[in-house]
Amino acid sequence: MSADQVTEYMSVLGRQARQASRVIARATTAVKNRALLATAEAIEAAEASLIEANGLDLQAGRDNGLDDAMLDRLALTPAGIRSMVEGLRQVAALADPIGAIRDMKYLPSGIQVGRMRVPLGVIGIIYESRPNVTVEAASLCLKSGNACILRGGSESIHSNRAIAQCIRQGLDAAGLPQEVVQVVETTDRAAVGALITMPEYVDVIVPRGGKGLIERISRDARVPVIKHLDGICHVYVDDRADLNKAEAIALNAKTHRYGVCNAMETLLVHEGVAAQFLPRMAALYGEKGVELRGCPQTCAILPQTIAATEEDWATEYLAPILSIRVVADMDEAMDHINRYSSQHTESIITEDFTRARRFLGEVDSSSVMVNASTRFADGFEYGLGAEIGISTDKLHARGPVGLEGLTSEKYIVHGDGHIRQ
Amino acid sequence: MSADQVTEYMSVLGRQARQASRVIARATTAVKNRALLATAEAIEAAEASLIEANGLDLQAGRDNGLDDAMLDRLALTPAGIRSMVEGLRQVAALADPIGAIRDMKYLPSGIQVGRMRVPLGVIGIIYESRPNVTVEAASLCLKSGNACILRGGSESIHSNRAIAQCIRQGLDAAGLPQEVVQVVETTDRAAVGALITMPEYVDVIVPRGGKGLIERISRDARVPVIKHLDGICHVYVDDRADLNKAEAIALNAKTHRYGVCNAMETLLVHEGVAAQFLPRMAALYGEKGVELRGCPQTCAILPQTIAATEEDWATEYLAPILSIRVVADMDEAMDHINRYSSQHTESIITEDFTRARRFLGEVDSSSVMVNASTRFADGFEYGLGAEIGISTDKLHARGPVGLEGLTSEKYIVHGDGHIRQ
Repeated sequence: MSADQVTEYMSVLGRQARQASRVIARATTAVKNRALLATAEAIEAAEASLIEANGLDLQAGRDNGLDDAMLDRLALTPAGIRSMVEGLRQVAALADPIGAIRDMKYLPSGIQVGRMRVPLGVIGIIYESRPNVTVEAASLCLKSGNACILRGGSESIHSNRAIAQCIRQGLDAAGLPQEVVQVVETTDRAAVGALITMPEYVDVIVPRGGKGLIERISRDARVPVIKHLDGICHVYVDDRADLNKAEAIALNAKTHRYGVCNAMETLLVHEGVAAQFLPRMAALYGEKGVELRGCPQTCAILPQTIAATEEDWATEYLAPILSIRVVADMDEAMDHINRYSSQHTESIITEDFTRARRFLGEVDSSSVMVNASTRFADGFEYGLGAEIGISTDKLHARGPVGLEGLTSEKYIVHGDGHIRQ
Repeated sequence: MSADQVTEYMSVLGRQARQASRVIARATTAVKNRALLATAEAIEAAEASLIEANGLDLQAGRDNGLDDAMLDRLALTPAGIRSMVEGLRQVAALADPIGAIRDMKYLPSGIQVGRMRVPLGVIGIIYESRPNVTVEAASLCLKSGNACILRGGSESIHSNRAIAQCIRQGLDAAGLPQEVVQVVETTDRAAVGALITMPEYVDVIVPRGGKGLIERISRDARVPVIKHLDGICHVYVDDRADLNKAEAIALNAKTHRYGVCNAMETLLVHEGVAAQFLPRMAALYGEKGVELRGCPQTCAILPQTIAATEEDWATEYLAPILSIRVVADMDEAMDHINRYSSQHTESIITEDFTRARRFLGEVDSSSVMVNASTRFADGFEYGLGAEIGISTDKLHARGPVGLEGLTSEKYIVHGDGHIRQ
């Protein structure tokens, strides 16, 4: 396609999505659930053809030299398909946020005012070559009453087309327009540029992927973006910590999984317990093969530690590397966090009520914890039932974004002929 | 100042605001209220010098040929100063939204998760030459724990400098840094361009003013914008309406004030009651000097009516002009609204429960009403206690934006050594 043709194609998708969004916005919970469950059945029934379509993507991926991690994310296995089906059923089982009314109250004029939860409209989702995201994103948008336009990585195009076919069957079965969920069927990169610059058709963009992609999209978008950039998460071990809890959490937050945004990247330790705590941790990290990079005080306690540079404090390693800094007190810890944190997730380990209370109030991150591993910062662990991503923005949605993050609230007013005096 | 100097000046303001935002974010309610009340006292005490400074602006305005409406908005009278002082005391009396925790609950893992309301950080406000907005915006940002940078119209520069002096006295008296509220003291237009492109220092922009200004800011901003564009509001009179209520509301919504965003611009009338209702309304509108522009059916009922053009349906008159359309039923009314509304405020007049319920659910505007005048769409009328503006965006805040709209929520987690399994 030429650039003009891509723009034209995308604006057709946009127009159709806008129209379909009006239908899905007022669809009943029962109808939306029927579409989700029928999609689950269609995917189950299409297992063989999904794996066949995915085979084309995998073959092309290998021919184009994709690395093993990318091929792994691209692959659709029978187990992966079962988990997609399971995910659809879970989303069907979630409470429907749409139409919920809260805080309806009488005002002095006699009118009653409250708020009603409503869909955002049309959501554009841009993601990497992970076919399971196609199903996940479609199901969350649908349940929250939104139409969506899904643009997955070009390496997964055959898989996504096959999945889109199943979703269309599900929408059909529920009597919903097929345009409620549209998969971009061109691999042309100009499609992304068009998708993020159609405010007349698209209400919000959710990019999922590497930091570079997300920064580029945020810079160029003419539509609001719910985005996730870095996860430079901190654990601060206070001198009033229970060091057994601190040990379990500092180990879990770093080593439970390395490549995730809610893993700890920097450990801050009160100088009053550093000499006691750090050698214990160094032994445990050593067993796991975690490389340590420390401030001068850390290096004095753990002589084999590499000296951390300024850059270390500002780095999301996503790897078995940890930077460690000894601080004089909680204020110094919070200053460090204020300066280097990506405002994702920070945790204090302390038994002191007043410090816990201050840390919770004063640390400006999307998740702030006391005596818990940063790894809990996750939509499922928070009981949202699902997660479209984790927002590091301050407006609209902070932290894990579930169904509610794909909605907003309008005001509703009940009167009985009331006029303004 | 050269363009470089303006950029440098603005980034100094930005850096200072970011720093001050950390202090105001954790200030107690008592300290914030002390600052508000001390500012009120400072303004009262400075009445003479405020009026003198304002005199310089008015003189310059007259010399530069400002029209009467602009001079009127620019003028600071003793009564206007009293109402600024009163406003500060009202904001001090409002509940502090910051730190409120909701929905703290145990999850299966044993952690407790809830949400805490927090400030946005630094808010940039861009507005016309209305000195009272300086006080209003400063007080709302301060109470909601945010630092702010205020950029008023250049015609009000002397007034704003004098007001800024009073606000600094108020901040001083409460022991807060003066940089919590900063007024841009250059009239150079490049200051606006700099303010909206410093995401490192400014978290959100609230523009107040004409549509052209707001569109320009939204287009160029590299920071989220809470904005208000058109107010093309509709009243739909159903055939099951109580026509006495309909009459009172249709009159109030159009004629209570003409130049406001929540005034009705289009009246939709069910064909079953049009012949009975429209002549009554035409007489009342005639008395008020409202010009009517109608669809062919309207013109058949009211022969002296001008024929409405396609453009009329899409126009925010802000004037004693009303477009009228007869519709076959509520669905046609909602189709018209979907197509032409600016999603600000729409009201249905009906005694029918099922239609009221459908209208409330299906009309996608920031305020949807039953049997009430669109003029109620207002922060004070909704009980917010204050209003920084009315948002026509869908993300974050829809409709009247009070203190809560200047905040967001973070997640907080309480554990007892919990780690992720």
